[in-house]
Amino acid sequence: MRLKGLGEFGVIEMIRRMLDSAGTGLDIGDDCAVLPFNRRNLLLFTCDMLIENEDFTPQDRLYLVGRKSLGCCLSDIAACGGVPCYAQVCLGLPSDMPVSKMRSLYRGIVSQAKEFKVKIVGGDISKSDRVVIDVSLIGMVEKGKLVLRGGAREGDIIFVSNKLGGSIYGRHLRFKPRIKESRYLVNNYKVNSMIDISDGLIQDLGHILHRSNKGAVLFKELIPVCAQADSLQDALYMGEDFELLFTLSGPEAKRLVRSSYADIFAPIGEIVAHTHGLVLLDEHARRLRLKRSGFRHF
Amino acid sequence: MRLKGLGEFGVIEMIRRMLDSAGTGLDIGDDCAVLPFNRRNLLLFTCDMLIENEDFTPQDRLYLVGRKSLGCCLSDIAACGGVPCYAQVCLGLPSDMPVSKMRSLYRGIVSQAKEFKVKIVGGDISKSDRVVIDVSLIGMVEKGKLVLRGGAREGDIIFVSNKLGGSIYGRHLRFKPRIKESRYLVNNYKVNSMIDISDGLIQDLGHILHRSNKGAVLFKELIPVCAQADSLQDALYMGEDFELLFTLSGPEAKRLVRSSYADIFAPIGEIVAHTHGLVLLDEHARRLRLKRSGFRHF
Repeated sequence: MRLKGLGEFGVIEMIRRMLDSAGTGLDIGDDCAVLPFNRRNLLLFTCDMLIENEDFTPQDRLYLVGRKSLGCCLSDIAACGGVPCYAQVCLGLPSDMPVSKMRSLYRGIVSQAKEFKVKIVGGDISKSDRVVIDVSLIGMVEKGKLVLRGGAREGDIIFVSNKLGGSIYGRHLRFKPRIKESRYLVNNYKVNSMIDISDGLIQDLGHILHRSNKGAVLFKELIPVCAQADSLQDALYMGEDFELLFTLSGPEAKRLVRSSYADIFAPIGEIVAHTHGLVLLDEHARRLRLKRSGFRHF
Repeated sequence: MRLKGLGEFGVIEMIRRMLDSAGTGLDIGDDCAVLPFNRRNLLLFTCDMLIENEDFTPQDRLYLVGRKSLGCCLSDIAACGGVPCYAQVCLGLPSDMPVSKMRSLYRGIVSQAKEFKVKIVGGDISKSDRVVIDVSLIGMVEKGKLVLRGGAREGDIIFVSNKLGGSIYGRHLRFKPRIKESRYLVNNYKVNSMIDISDGLIQDLGHILHRSNKGAVLFKELIPVCAQADSLQDALYMGEDFELLFTLSGPEAKRLVRSSYADIFAPIGEIVAHTHGLVLLDEHARRLRLKRSGFRHF
């Protein structure tokens, strides 16, 4: 069998089993690895790889590709409620690449690092036919503020941090990692579960539900669809929005929608018992069919 | 200008300047980034990227390639005197890759992780024409035991941890990361400077000399040439030996060569004043010409 036959999640499941049986893996299912640091703080550790022709095209501005490469990792740290600190940048570059293009790429990385006060502390350069960028990032989060995927509870209200869809028309290169929004949330609310939307709303909500062993009801009318999106389908299934998807208890949700930050966060549904599965209702409370899909590499 | 015109070290220098002027870089010249952890320990952070056709061939056994990918990072941790802890593994894989091959690759990574008690805590999978493996690794070192490139002193004796050369005939896939040897050294000696030989003895010694602002005299007869090496030139210039290259003061060096571990470590020369440059002497104390070269990606 080939990888495309097994599928991305099949490959990940295979890796998980290999790590388990060797006793050398730690829980690998969240946005960041969570490691011990000191009495007050935990270390967050994440990485993301971008490959030319897969995650960006040769026509994309390399400055924006550079921003995206660090941005994906920043989004992972945001999903855990943390603050980013130190990055390593590994580059695979064609030897006939113009120096000016490589400068643009790195300027993008540096500009993103500066915006979020990330220190670039090292890296590696290799020759490669295609441009490959791998960023790994260390962050920090206070023990009481860590948020994982597995904490959603029945009755929780589900929120997203901004409008969804249309990422393929350029937003996937120009998104804003939601560090500030995430820190506002964990500093002021008890956030029960959180993830960043990289594979599409439905698929990433599926990750929260799976890890929390819960179901969810979404309301079609509440889903904030971006002006650039082709349709609701886009907002449901297209990956790389890099918005936060999170759940708060009823009372906490009320506080949030009454706060001055209410317009940044849209409530879109509710967590229910596992047995209900994932349901999308239209304005007449009719159940709409959901595809169990989203972005997959294989 | 193209990257190959600028050269690998030119590209690195350009990156260093960009980071400096943005104020967002930390000292990026050592084997690992050294970050604050707690009162006793420092955090080490490193990454390495392997790309098919550059760092290994399609004919190489993927199990060994997997071992190498983590092994390179382990070697960086060893060069700083540390203990490895947590790894992230990013993979770029062709979608028509047989699952069995991917399993071999990952089994290699897992076997290396197990040998050195490294926990694999996450990663990322992307589609890619060529196999790309990027490992990032967090380690730990006690403050008093950290060794960097820049600490060599005049009169220090220069050692290597084992025989050099011949890596291209397979040793670059089968090297043993020198964690145990490094820990023996930092636990029992005051090691003034250390690096792992990834670009070739002369080039990596050059890094120690540059950072320490020193010169060195090497004795040709003392350089331990591996049986697989074609010649002394191999041992001097071929990369990916992944042996430790380090310096000890005269008294510490004496203790080491009299210890029961003496046969693992070979003294090959001495650190001298910067003005002498890097000199290789033959058995008649005649100066041999050195090429200022070693492995470069561009």
